[in-house]
Amino acid sequence: MSTSIAQAAVNALYAGDRASQMLGIEVLGIEPGCVRVAMTVRPDMANGHGICHGGLLFALADSAFAFACNSHGVAMVAAGASIEFLAPTRVGERVIATARQISRTERHGIYDVVIAAAGGETIAHFRGRCARLRVHTQKATLGEQRR
Amino acid sequence: MSTSIAQAAVNALYAGDRASQMLGIEVLGIEPGCVRVAMTVRPDMANGHGICHGGLLFALADSAFAFACNSHGVAMVAAGASIEFLAPTRVGERVIATARQISRTERHGIYDVVIAAAGGETIAHFRGRCARLRVHTQKATLGEQRR
Amino acid sequence: MSTSIAQAAVNALYAGDRASQMLGIEVLGIEPGCVRVAMTVRPDMANGHGICHGGLLFALADSAFAFACNSHGVAMVAAGASIEFLAPTRVGERVIATARQISRTERHGIYDVVIAAAGGETIAHFRGRCARLRVHTQKATLGEQRR
Amino acid sequence: MSTSIAQAAVNALYAGDRASQMLGIEVLGIEPGCVRVAMTVRPDMANGHGICHGGLLFALADSAFAFACNSHGVAMVAAGASIEFLAPTRVGERVIATARQISRTERHGIYDVVIAAAGGETIAHFRGRCARLRVHTQKATLGEQRR
Repeated sequence: MSTSIAQAAVNALYAGDRASQMLGIEVLGIEPGCVRVAMTVRPDMANGHGICHGGLLFALADSAFAFACNSHGVAMVAAGASIEFLAPTRVGERVIATARQISRTERHGIYDVVIAAAGGETIAHFRGRCARLRVHTQKATLGEQRR
Repeated sequence: MSTSIAQAAVNALYAGDRASQMLGIEVLGIEPGCVRVAMTVRPDMANGHGICHGGLLFALADSAFAFACNSHGVAMVAAGASIEFLAPTRVGERVIATARQISRTERHGIYDVVIAAAGGETIAHFRGRCARLRVHTQKATLGEQRR
Repeated sequence: MSTSIAQAAVNALYAGDRASQMLGIEVLGIEPGCVRVAMTVRPDMANGHGICHGGLLFALADSAFAFACNSHGVAMVAAGASIEFLAPTRVGERVIATARQISRTERHGIYDVVIAAAGGETIAHFRGRCARLRVHTQKATLGEQRR
Repeated sequence: MSTSIAQAAVNALYAGDRASQMLGIEVLGIEPGCVRVAMTVRPDMANGHGICHGGLLFALADSAFAFACNSHGVAMVAAGASIEFLAPTRVGERVIATARQISRTERHGIYDVVIAAAGGETIAHFRGRCARLRVHTQKATLGEQRR
Protein backbone atom coordinates (compact mmCIF):
# COMPACT_ATOMS: atom_id res chain seq x y z
CA MET A 1 0.00 0.00 0.00
CA SER A 2 2.57 2.59 1.05
CA THR A 3 4.79 1.25 -1.74
CA SER A 4 2.07 2.09 -4.24
CA ILE A 5 1.74 5.61 -2.75
CA ALA A 6 5.51 5.98 -3.08
CA GLN A 7 5.46 4.80 -6.68
CA ALA A 8 2.64 7.18 -7.59
CA ALA A 9 4.39 10.11 -5.88
CA VAL A 10 7.76 9.46 -7.51
CA ASN A 11 6.30 8.75 -10.93
CA ALA A 12 4.36 12.03 -10.82
CA LEU A 13 7.47 13.94 -9.77
CA TYR A 14 9.61 12.25 -12.40
CA ALA A 15 7.06 12.98 -15.14
CA GLY A 16 7.52 16.71 -14.53
CA ASP A 17 11.27 16.56 -13.90
CA ARG A 18 12.71 17.67 -17.21
CA ALA A 19 16.24 17.93 -15.79
CA SER A 20 16.34 14.27 -14.76
CA GLN A 21 14.96 13.32 -18.17
CA MET A 22 17.53 15.53 -19.95
CA LEU A 23 20.31 13.74 -18.04
CA GLY A 24 18.92 10.33 -19.03
CA ILE A 25 18.20 9.39 -15.42
CA GLU A 26 16.08 6.22 -15.09
CA VAL A 27 14.18 5.16 -11.99
CA LEU A 28 15.04 1.55 -11.11
CA GLY A 29 13.22 1.00 -7.85
CA ILE A 30 10.86 2.80 -5.47
CA GLU A 31 10.08 1.98 -1.86
CA PRO A 32 8.86 4.49 0.78
CA GLY A 33 11.94 6.55 1.66
CA CYS A 34 14.23 4.59 -0.64
CA VAL A 35 14.73 5.15 -4.37
CA ARG A 36 17.30 3.78 -6.83
CA VAL A 37 18.16 5.58 -10.08
CA ALA A 38 20.73 5.11 -12.84
CA MET A 39 22.51 7.24 -15.45
CA THR A 40 24.98 6.44 -18.22
CA VAL A 41 27.82 8.97 -18.54
CA ARG A 42 27.55 10.51 -22.01
CA PRO A 43 30.47 12.21 -23.80
CA ASP A 44 28.78 15.58 -23.21
CA MET A 45 28.91 14.90 -19.44
CA ALA A 46 32.73 14.88 -19.26
CA ASN A 47 34.66 17.74 -17.68
CA GLY A 48 38.02 19.21 -18.70
CA HIS A 49 39.89 16.27 -17.14
CA GLY A 50 37.96 13.85 -19.40
CA ILE A 51 35.97 12.24 -16.58
CA CYS A 52 32.33 12.69 -15.56
CA HIS A 53 31.67 16.25 -14.30
CA GLY A 54 31.21 16.04 -10.53
CA GLY A 55 28.19 18.31 -10.72
CA LEU A 56 26.35 15.77 -12.87
CA LEU A 57 27.13 12.93 -10.44
CA PHE A 58 25.79 15.23 -7.74
CA ALA A 59 22.68 15.84 -9.89
CA LEU A 60 22.11 12.08 -10.15
CA ALA A 61 22.32 11.71 -6.36
CA ASP A 62 20.17 14.79 -5.89
CA SER A 63 17.43 13.28 -8.06
CA ALA A 64 17.53 10.04 -6.06
CA PHE A 65 17.31 12.12 -2.87
CA ALA A 66 14.44 14.26 -4.18
CA PHE A 67 12.47 11.19 -5.22
CA ALA A 68 13.10 9.46 -1.87
CA CYS A 69 12.17 12.45 0.28
CA ASN A 70 8.98 13.05 -1.74
CA SER A 71 8.01 9.37 -1.73
CA HIS A 72 5.68 9.79 1.26
CA GLY A 73 3.35 12.04 -0.75
CA VAL A 74 4.29 15.25 1.11
CA ALA A 75 6.19 17.94 -0.86
CA MET A 76 9.73 18.42 0.43
CA VAL A 77 12.52 20.52 -1.07
CA ALA A 78 16.27 20.19 -0.68
CA ALA A 79 17.76 22.55 1.89
CA GLY A 80 21.37 21.46 1.42
CA ALA A 81 23.67 18.56 0.70
CA SER A 82 27.25 17.39 0.80
CA ILE A 83 29.16 14.95 -1.38
CA GLU A 84 32.48 13.12 -1.08
CA PHE A 85 34.05 11.94 -4.34
CA LEU A 86 35.96 8.65 -4.00
CA ALA A 87 36.78 7.62 -7.56
CA PRO A 88 36.52 9.13 -11.06
CA THR A 89 33.90 7.91 -13.53
CA ARG A 90 34.59 7.42 -17.21
CA VAL A 91 32.46 8.22 -20.22
CA GLY A 92 30.30 5.23 -21.08
CA GLU A 93 30.04 3.97 -17.51
CA ARG A 94 26.63 3.31 -16.00
CA VAL A 95 26.30 4.62 -12.45
CA ILE A 96 23.63 3.79 -9.91
CA ALA A 97 22.53 6.02 -7.02
CA THR A 98 20.63 4.53 -4.10
CA ALA A 99 18.95 6.93 -1.66
CA ARG A 100 17.78 5.80 1.75
CA GLN A 101 16.09 7.66 4.55
CA ILE A 102 18.22 8.27 7.65
CA SER A 103 15.91 10.55 9.59
CA ARG A 104 12.49 12.06 9.06
CA THR A 105 10.21 14.28 11.09
CA GLU A 106 7.10 16.11 9.96
CA ARG A 107 9.21 19.03 8.70
CA HIS A 108 12.72 17.76 8.02
CA GLY A 109 14.57 14.76 6.65
CA ILE A 110 18.07 13.45 6.08
CA TYR A 111 18.83 11.04 3.25
CA ASP A 112 22.07 9.26 2.36
CA VAL A 113 22.81 8.39 -1.24
CA VAL A 114 25.53 5.98 -2.36
CA ILE A 115 26.70 6.34 -5.97
CA ALA A 116 28.26 3.16 -7.34
CA ALA A 117 29.56 1.91 -10.67
CA ALA A 118 27.59 -0.89 -12.32
CA GLY A 119 30.36 -3.25 -11.15
CA GLY A 120 29.75 -2.27 -7.54
CA GLU A 121 32.65 0.08 -6.78
CA THR A 122 31.55 3.06 -4.71
CA ILE A 123 32.12 6.36 -6.54
CA ALA A 124 30.69 8.91 -4.12
CA HIS A 125 28.77 9.40 -0.88
CA PHE A 126 26.07 12.08 -0.73
CA ARG A 127 24.03 13.30 2.26
CA GLY A 128 21.01 15.55 1.69
CA ARG A 129 18.78 17.55 4.00
CA CYS A 130 15.22 18.46 3.04
CA ALA A 131 12.52 20.66 4.51
CA ARG A 132 8.79 20.79 4.11
CA LEU A 133 7.48 23.83 2.29
CA ARG A 134 5.31 25.99 4.55
CA VAL A 135 1.92 26.71 3.08
CA HIS A 136 2.35 30.46 2.71
CA THR A 137 5.81 29.91 1.25
CA GLN A 138 4.33 27.50 -1.20
CA LYS A 139 1.77 30.08 -2.28
CA ALA A 140 4.26 32.91 -2.45
CA THR A 141 7.13 31.03 -3.97
CA LEU A 142 6.30 27.89 -5.83
CA GLY A 143 2.87 29.03 -6.94
CA GLU A 144 4.40 32.13 -8.46
CA GLN A 145 6.94 30.02 -10.30
CA ARG A 146 4.31 27.92 -11.96
CA ARG A 147 2.53 30.80 -13.60
CA MET B 1 51.29 37.91 -15.54
CA SER B 2 49.73 35.38 -13.16
CA THR B 3 46.36 36.55 -14.48
CA SER B 4 47.41 35.51 -17.97
CA ILE B 5 48.50 32.10 -16.63
CA ALA B 6 45.12 31.78 -14.94
CA GLN B 7 43.30 32.73 -18.13
CA ALA B 8 45.30 30.25 -20.20
CA ALA B 9 44.72 27.45 -17.65
CA VAL B 10 40.99 28.07 -17.36
CA ASN B 11 40.46 28.53 -21.08
CA ALA B 12 42.24 25.22 -21.77
CA LEU B 13 40.13 23.44 -19.15
CA TYR B 14 36.93 25.00 -20.42
CA ALA B 15 37.72 24.05 -24.02
CA GLY B 16 37.69 20.37 -23.02
CA ASP B 17 34.79 20.65 -20.57
CA ARG B 18 31.90 19.36 -22.59
CA ALA B 19 29.60 19.23 -19.55
CA SER B 20 29.98 22.96 -18.86
CA GLN B 21 29.37 23.67 -22.53
CA MET B 22 26.30 21.39 -22.60
CA LEU B 23 24.88 23.35 -19.64
CA GLY B 24 25.50 26.65 -21.43
CA ILE B 25 27.94 27.83 -18.76
CA GLU B 26 29.89 30.95 -19.77
CA VAL B 27 33.08 32.18 -18.16
CA LEU B 28 32.72 35.85 -17.21
CA GLY B 29 35.97 36.59 -15.39
CA ILE B 30 39.24 34.90 -14.45
CA GLU B 31 41.76 35.93 -11.81
CA PRO B 32 44.20 33.60 -10.03
CA GLY B 33 42.05 31.64 -7.53
CA CYS B 34 38.88 33.49 -8.48
CA VAL B 35 36.55 32.70 -11.38
CA ARG B 36 33.04 33.94 -12.23
CA VAL B 37 30.66 31.96 -14.46
CA ALA B 38 27.03 32.30 -15.54
CA MET B 39 24.20 30.04 -16.73
CA THR B 40 20.64 30.70 -17.85
CA VAL B 41 18.09 28.21 -16.52
CA ARG B 42 16.56 26.45 -19.53
CA PRO B 43 13.18 24.68 -19.45
CA ASP B 44 14.99 21.33 -19.58
CA MET B 45 16.80 22.25 -16.34
CA ALA B 46 13.62 22.35 -14.23
CA ASN B 47 12.83 19.63 -11.69
CA GLY B 48 9.46 18.16 -10.75
CA HIS B 49 8.61 21.23 -8.64
CA GLY B 50 9.04 23.46 -11.73
CA ILE B 51 12.18 25.21 -10.43
CA CYS B 52 15.83 24.77 -11.41
CA HIS B 53 17.10 21.29 -10.44
CA GLY B 54 19.43 21.73 -7.47
CA GLY B 55 21.96 19.41 -9.05
CA LEU B 56 22.38 21.77 -11.98
CA LEU B 57 22.92 24.77 -9.70
CA PHE B 58 25.51 22.63 -7.92
CA ALA B 59 27.07 21.82 -11.31
CA LEU B 60 27.36 25.54 -12.08
CA ALA B 61 29.12 26.16 -8.75
CA ASP B 62 31.26 23.07 -9.25
CA SER B 63 32.47 24.40 -12.62
CA ALA B 64 33.37 27.77 -11.07
CA PHE B 65 35.22 25.89 -8.30
CA ALA B 66 37.07 23.62 -10.77
CA PHE B 67 38.16 26.58 -12.87
CA ALA B 68 39.32 28.53 -9.80
CA CYS B 69 41.28 25.65 -8.25
CA ASN B 70 42.97 24.88 -11.57
CA SER B 71 43.75 28.55 -12.29
CA HIS B 72 47.28 28.26 -10.91
CA GLY B 73 48.29 25.84 -13.67
CA VAL B 74 48.49 22.77 -11.40
CA ALA B 75 45.90 20.00 -11.94
CA MET B 76 43.54 19.67 -8.99
CA VAL B 77 40.40 17.53 -8.69
CA ALA B 78 37.38 17.95 -6.44
CA ALA B 79 37.46 15.79 -3.32
CA GLY B 80 34.12 16.92 -1.94
CA ALA B 81 31.71 19.81 -1.58
CA SER B 82 28.67 21.04 0.28
CA ILE B 83 25.87 23.37 -0.77
CA GLU B 84 23.15 25.28 1.07
CA PHE B 85 20.10 26.27 -0.99
CA LEU B 86 18.59 29.60 0.07
CA ALA B 87 16.04 30.41 -2.61
CA PRO B 88 14.50 28.67 -5.63
CA THR B 89 15.43 29.68 -9.18
CA ARG B 90 12.94 29.94 -12.00
CA VAL B 91 13.24 28.91 -15.62
CA GLY B 92 14.60 31.81 -17.67
CA GLU B 93 16.62 33.30 -14.82
CA ARG B 94 20.31 33.99 -15.32
CA VAL B 95 22.45 32.91 -12.37
CA ILE B 96 26.03 33.85 -11.63
CA ALA B 97 28.50 31.80 -9.59
CA THR B 98 31.62 33.43 -8.15
CA ALA B 99 34.36 31.17 -6.78
CA ARG B 100 37.08 32.49 -4.53
CA GLN B 101 40.01 30.79 -2.87
CA ILE B 102 39.78 30.44 0.92
CA SER B 103 42.80 28.23 1.54
CA ARG B 104 45.49 26.62 -0.58
CA THR B 105 48.53 24.49 0.13
CA GLU B 106 50.65 22.53 -2.34
CA ARG B 107 48.24 19.59 -2.13
CA HIS B 108 44.85 20.88 -0.98
CA GLY B 109 42.52 23.81 -1.40
CA ILE B 110 39.19 25.15 -0.17
CA TYR B 111 37.04 27.38 -2.35
CA ASP B 112 33.77 29.16 -1.59
CA VAL B 113 31.27 29.81 -4.33
CA VAL B 114 28.32 32.18 -4.06
CA ILE B 115 25.47 31.63 -6.51
CA ALA B 116 23.37 34.74 -7.10
CA ALA B 117 20.51 35.78 -9.34
CA ALA B 118 21.30 38.42 -11.95
CA GLY B 119 19.49 40.92 -9.69
CA GLY B 120 21.89 40.17 -6.85
CA GLU B 121 19.84 37.92 -4.55
CA THR B 122 21.91 35.05 -3.16
CA ILE B 123 20.52 31.67 -4.22
CA ALA B 124 23.05 29.24 -2.72
CA HIS B 125 26.37 28.93 -0.90
CA PHE B 126 28.81 26.22 -1.99
CA ARG B 127 32.12 25.16 -0.39
CA GLY B 128 34.47 22.83 -2.30
CA ARG B 129 37.60 20.93 -1.33
CA CYS B 130 40.18 19.92 -3.92
CA ALA B 131 43.28 17.74 -3.90
CA ARG B 132 46.27 17.52 -6.18
CA LEU B 133 46.50 14.36 -8.24
CA ARG B 134 49.54 12.27 -7.31
CA VAL B 135 51.68 11.41 -10.33
CA HIS B 136 51.14 7.66 -10.19
CA THR B 137 47.41 8.18 -9.69
CA GLN B 138 47.38 10.42 -12.70
CA LYS B 139 49.06 7.75 -14.82
CA ALA B 140 46.93 4.93 -13.50
CA THR B 141 43.64 6.73 -13.41
CA LEU B 142 43.31 9.77 -15.57
CA GLY B 143 45.65 8.50 -18.29
CA GLU B 144 43.60 5.35 -18.54
CA GLN B 145 40.41 7.37 -18.86
CA ARG B 146 41.66 9.25 -21.86
CA ARG B 147 42.32 6.20 -24.00
CA MET C 1 23.22 51.28 18.82
CA SER C 2 22.92 47.84 17.20
CA THR C 3 26.43 47.14 18.49
CA SER C 4 25.20 47.70 22.02
CA ILE C 5 22.25 45.35 21.41
CA ALA C 6 24.71 42.75 20.09
CA GLN C 7 26.95 43.17 23.11
CA ALA C 8 24.05 42.84 25.54
CA ALA C 9 22.72 39.74 23.73
CA VAL C 10 26.10 38.00 23.57
CA ASN C 11 27.04 38.89 27.13
CA ALA C 12 23.74 37.47 28.41
CA LEU C 13 24.22 34.28 26.42
CA TYR C 14 27.83 33.94 27.54
CA ALA C 15 26.89 34.45 31.19
CA GLY C 16 24.72 31.33 31.06
CA ASP C 17 27.05 29.33 28.81
CA ARG C 18 28.81 27.07 31.28
CA ALA C 19 30.40 24.98 28.52
CA SER C 20 32.19 27.97 26.99
CA GLN C 21 33.34 29.00 30.45
CA MET C 22 34.55 25.46 31.24
CA LEU C 23 36.62 25.50 28.04
CA GLY C 24 38.14 28.87 29.00
CA ILE C 25 36.65 30.60 25.96
CA GLU C 26 36.96 34.40 26.12
CA VAL C 27 34.95 36.85 24.03
CA LEU C 28 37.29 39.31 22.31
CA GLY C 29 34.96 41.36 20.16
CA ILE C 30 31.25 41.72 19.36
CA GLU C 31 29.62 43.39 16.39
CA PRO C 32 26.16 42.55 14.98
CA GLY C 33 26.59 39.23 13.17
CA CYS C 34 30.32 39.06 13.89
CA VAL C 35 31.97 37.74 17.06
CA ARG C 36 35.59 36.89 17.89
CA VAL C 37 36.54 34.47 20.67
CA ALA C 38 39.76 32.87 21.91
CA MET C 39 40.83 29.72 23.77
CA THR C 40 44.19 28.44 24.98
CA VAL C 41 44.74 24.72 24.43
CA ARG C 42 45.17 23.12 27.85
CA PRO C 43 46.91 19.77 28.42
CA ASP C 44 43.50 18.21 29.18
CA MET C 45 42.33 19.25 25.68
CA ALA C 46 44.84 17.02 23.84
CA ASN C 47 43.73 13.87 22.03
CA GLY C 48 45.55 10.56 21.70
CA HIS C 49 47.87 12.00 19.03
CA GLY C 50 49.02 14.69 21.49
CA ILE C 51 47.39 17.59 19.62
CA CYS C 52 44.24 19.57 20.39
CA HIS C 53 41.12 17.35 20.14
CA GLY C 54 39.28 18.37 16.97
CA GLY C 55 35.98 18.37 18.82
CA LEU C 56 37.20 21.13 21.13
CA LEU C 57 38.35 23.28 18.19
CA PHE C 58 34.88 22.69 16.77
CA ALA C 59 33.38 23.72 20.12
CA LEU C 60 35.35 26.98 20.01
CA ALA C 61 34.05 27.73 16.51
CA ASP C 62 30.55 26.66 17.53
CA SER C 63 30.57 29.15 20.41
CA ALA C 64 31.68 31.96 18.09
CA PHE C 65 28.90 30.94 15.69
CA ALA C 66 26.27 30.76 18.45
CA PHE C 67 27.24 34.20 19.75
CA ALA C 68 27.20 35.69 16.25
CA CYS C 69 23.85 34.22 15.23
CA ASN C 70 22.25 35.34 18.51
CA SER C 71 23.77 38.83 18.34
CA HIS C 72 20.64 40.34 16.79
CA GLY C 73 18.64 39.65 19.95
CA VAL C 74 16.53 36.84 18.41
CA ALA C 75 17.07 33.29 19.74
CA MET C 76 18.60 31.01 17.12
CA VAL C 77 19.88 27.45 17.53
CA ALA C 78 22.43 25.53 15.49
CA ALA C 79 20.89 23.19 12.93
CA GLY C 80 24.16 21.83 11.59
CA ALA C 81 27.75 22.64 10.76
CA SER C 82 30.81 21.43 8.90
CA ILE C 83 34.51 21.88 9.61
CA GLU C 84 37.71 21.40 7.60
CA PHE C 85 40.89 20.88 9.60
CA LEU C 86 43.98 22.39 7.94
CA ALA C 87 46.72 22.15 10.57
CA PRO C 88 47.18 20.57 14.00
CA THR C 89 47.24 22.71 17.15
CA ARG C 90 49.63 22.10 20.04
CA VAL C 91 49.03 22.27 23.75
CA GLY C 92 49.74 25.79 24.99
CA GLU C 93 48.75 27.50 21.76
CA ARG C 94 46.18 30.28 21.81
CA VAL C 95 43.61 29.99 19.03
CA ILE C 96 41.19 32.63 17.83
CA ALA C 97 37.86 32.00 16.12
CA THR C 98 36.17 34.74 14.12
CA ALA C 99 32.55 34.25 13.09
CA ARG C 100 30.93 36.36 10.42
CA GLN C 101 27.45 36.33 8.97
CA ILE C 102 27.16 35.07 5.38
CA SER C 103 23.40 34.96 5.04
CA ARG C 104 20.42 35.72 7.26
CA THR C 105 16.68 35.64 6.82
CA GLU C 106 14.00 35.86 9.50
CA ARG C 107 14.25 32.14 10.16
CA HIS C 108 17.66 30.92 8.99
CA GLY C 109 21.28 31.97 8.91
CA ILE C 110 24.67 30.84 7.65
CA TYR C 111 27.86 31.83 9.45
CA ASP C 112 31.48 31.17 8.53
CA VAL C 113 34.09 30.85 11.25
CA VAL C 114 37.84 30.96 10.67
CA ILE C 115 40.02 29.42 13.40
CA ALA C 116 43.55 30.78 13.42
CA ALA C 117 46.63 30.48 15.59
CA ALA C 118 47.69 33.58 17.47
CA GLY C 119 50.45 33.97 14.86
CA GLY C 120 47.89 34.15 12.10
CA GLU C 121 48.09 30.67 10.51
CA THR C 122 44.65 29.31 9.63
CA ILE C 123 43.88 26.08 11.51
CA ALA C 124 40.34 25.31 10.41
CA HIS C 125 37.33 26.57 8.48
CA PHE C 126 33.85 26.09 9.94
CA ARG C 127 30.44 26.80 8.40
CA GLY C 128 27.33 26.75 10.59
CA ARG C 129 23.61 26.86 9.84
CA CYS C 130 21.11 28.11 12.39
CA ALA C 131 17.34 28.20 12.64
CA ARG C 132 14.93 30.26 14.67
CA LEU C 133 13.05 28.36 17.33
CA ARG C 134 9.34 28.30 16.65
CA VAL C 135 7.29 29.50 19.58
CA HIS C 136 5.46 26.24 20.28
CA THR C 137 8.75 24.35 19.92
CA GLN C 138 10.29 26.73 22.39
CA LYS C 139 7.53 26.03 24.87
CA ALA C 140 7.50 22.30 24.30
CA THR C 141 11.22 21.76 24.10
CA LEU C 142 13.35 24.41 25.68
CA GLY C 143 10.84 25.26 28.41
CA GLU C 144 10.68 21.63 29.38
CA GLN C 145 14.46 21.47 29.55
CA ARG C 146 14.67 24.30 32.02
CA ARG C 147 12.47 22.67 34.63
CA MET D 1 42.00 -11.56 16.00
CA SER D 2 41.37 -8.27 14.18
CA THR D 3 38.99 -7.42 17.02
CA SER D 4 41.86 -7.77 19.48
CA ILE D 5 44.04 -5.53 17.26
CA ALA D 6 41.21 -2.99 17.21
CA GLN D 7 40.81 -3.15 20.99
CA ALA D 8 44.55 -2.71 21.56
CA ALA D 9 44.71 0.23 19.12
CA VAL D 10 41.69 2.01 20.59
CA ASN D 11 42.71 1.38 24.20
CA ALA D 12 46.18 2.83 23.51
CA LEU D 13 44.68 5.88 21.82
CA TYR D 14 42.14 6.38 24.61
CA ALA D 15 44.83 6.08 27.29
CA GLY D 16 46.55 9.15 25.84
CA ASP D 17 43.37 11.04 24.99
CA ARG D 18 43.07 13.48 27.84
CA ALA D 19 40.27 15.42 26.15
CA SER D 20 37.99 12.37 25.96
CA GLN D 21 38.78 11.60 29.58
CA MET D 22 38.10 15.20 30.63
CA LEU D 23 34.69 14.97 28.94
CA GLY D 24 33.91 11.72 30.78
CA ILE D 25 33.69 9.75 27.54
CA GLU D 26 33.59 5.98 28.08
CA VAL D 27 34.29 3.35 25.44
CA LEU D 28 31.44 0.82 25.33
CA GLY D 29 32.39 -1.41 22.41
CA ILE D 30 35.17 -1.87 19.87
CA GLU D 31 35.10 -3.79 16.59
CA PRO D 32 37.34 -3.11 13.56
CA GLY D 33 35.96 0.09 12.01
CA CYS D 34 33.14 0.38 14.52
CA VAL D 35 33.31 1.94 17.99
CA ARG D 36 30.60 2.91 20.49
CA VAL D 37 31.17 5.54 23.18
CA ALA D 38 29.00 7.27 25.80
CA MET D 39 28.97 10.55 27.73
CA THR D 40 26.67 11.97 30.40
CA VAL D 41 25.85 15.67 29.95
CA ARG D 42 27.19 17.50 33.01
CA PRO D 43 25.93 20.92 34.15
CA ASP D 44 29.21 22.46 32.94
CA MET D 45 28.45 21.16 29.42
CA ALA D 46 25.32 23.30 28.98
CA ASN D 47 25.28 26.31 26.66
CA GLY D 48 23.49 29.63 27.08
CA HIS D 49 20.16 28.05 26.07
CA GLY D 50 20.48 25.54 28.96
CA ILE D 51 20.97 22.50 26.71
CA CYS D 52 24.13 20.52 25.89
CA HIS D 53 26.63 22.66 23.94
CA GLY D 54 26.62 21.39 20.35
CA GLY D 55 30.40 21.46 20.26
CA LEU D 56 30.57 18.89 23.04
CA LEU D 57 28.14 16.57 21.26
CA PHE D 58 30.37 17.00 18.21
CA ALA D 59 33.40 16.16 20.39
CA LEU D 60 31.72 12.93 21.52
CA ALA D 61 31.05 11.93 17.91
CA ASP D 62 34.57 13.01 16.92
CA SER D 63 36.07 10.71 19.57
CA ALA D 64 33.98 7.78 18.34
CA PHE D 65 35.12 8.58 14.79
CA ALA D 66 38.80 8.89 15.81
CA PHE D 67 38.69 5.58 17.64
CA ALA D 68 36.96 3.83 14.72
CA CYS D 69 39.30 5.17 12.03
CA ASN D 70 42.37 4.25 14.10
CA SER D 71 41.04 0.79 14.97
CA HIS D 72 42.96 -0.88 12.15
CA GLY D 73 46.29 0.00 13.77
CA VAL D 74 47.26 2.64 11.19
CA ALA D 75 47.41 6.27 12.37
CA MET D 76 44.71 8.42 10.74
CA VAL D 77 43.75 12.02 11.52
CA ALA D 78 40.49 13.83 10.94
CA ALA D 79 40.44 15.97 7.80
CA GLY D 80 36.92 17.30 8.23
CA ALA D 81 33.42 16.51 9.43
CA SER D 82 29.83 17.64 9.32
CA ILE D 83 27.02 17.32 11.84
CA GLU D 84 23.24 17.71 11.71
CA PHE D 85 21.51 18.42 15.02
CA LEU D 86 18.05 16.87 15.27
CA ALA D 87 17.03 17.33 18.91
CA PRO D 88 18.36 19.14 21.98
CA THR D 89 19.96 17.23 24.86
CA ARG D 90 19.36 18.07 28.52
CA VAL D 91 21.77 18.14 31.39
CA GLY D 92 21.87 14.73 33.08
CA GLU D 93 21.09 12.78 29.90
CA ARG D 94 23.38 9.97 28.83
CA VAL D 95 24.16 10.03 25.10
CA ILE D 96 25.68 7.26 23.02
CA ALA D 97 27.67 7.71 19.81
CA THR D 98 28.14 4.80 17.42
CA ALA D 99 30.73 5.16 14.65
CA ARG D 100 30.78 2.84 11.66
CA GLN D 101 33.02 2.72 8.64
CA ILE D 102 31.41 3.71 5.34
CA SER D 103 34.48 3.74 3.11
CA ARG D 104 38.19 3.09 3.56
CA THR D 105 41.19 3.07 1.25
CA GLU D 106 44.86 2.97 2.18
CA ARG D 107 44.89 6.74 2.60
CA HIS D 108 41.34 7.93 3.28
CA GLY D 109 38.23 6.95 5.15
CA ILE D 110 34.64 8.06 5.73
CA TYR D 111 32.83 7.24 8.96
CA ASP D 112 29.25 7.91 10.00
CA VAL D 113 28.39 8.46 13.63
CA VAL D 114 24.87 8.39 15.06
CA ILE D 115 24.37 10.14 18.40
CA ALA D 116 21.37 8.85 20.32
CA ALA D 117 19.82 9.37 23.73
CA ALA D 118 19.92 6.41 26.11
CA GLY D 119 16.22 5.90 25.30
CA GLY D 120 17.03 5.49 21.62
CA GLU D 121 15.97 8.84 20.14
CA THR D 122 18.46 10.09 17.53
CA ILE D 123 20.01 13.42 18.55
CA ALA D 124 22.49 14.06 15.74
CA HIS D 125 24.11 12.60 12.62
CA PHE D 126 27.85 13.12 12.07
CA ARG D 127 29.99 12.23 9.05
CA GLY D 128 33.79 12.38 9.33
CA ARG D 129 36.60 12.15 6.78
CA CYS D 130 40.09 11.01 7.78
CA ALA D 131 43.45 10.88 6.06
CA ARG D 132 46.58 8.91 6.72
CA LEU D 133 49.53 10.94 7.88
CA ARG D 134 52.38 10.88 5.37
CA VAL D 135 55.65 9.78 6.91
CA HIS D 136 57.48 13.04 6.40
CA THR D 137 54.47 14.95 7.67
CA GLN D 138 54.41 12.75 10.72
CA LYS D 139 58.05 13.52 11.43
CA ALA D 140 57.71 17.21 10.72
CA THR D 141 54.38 17.76 12.38
CA LEU D 142 53.32 15.26 14.96
CA GLY D 143 56.87 14.43 16.09
CA GLU D 144 57.47 18.11 16.66
CA GLN D 145 54.30 18.37 18.72
CA ARG D 146 55.36 15.67 21.08
CA ARG D 147 58.59 17.33 22.17
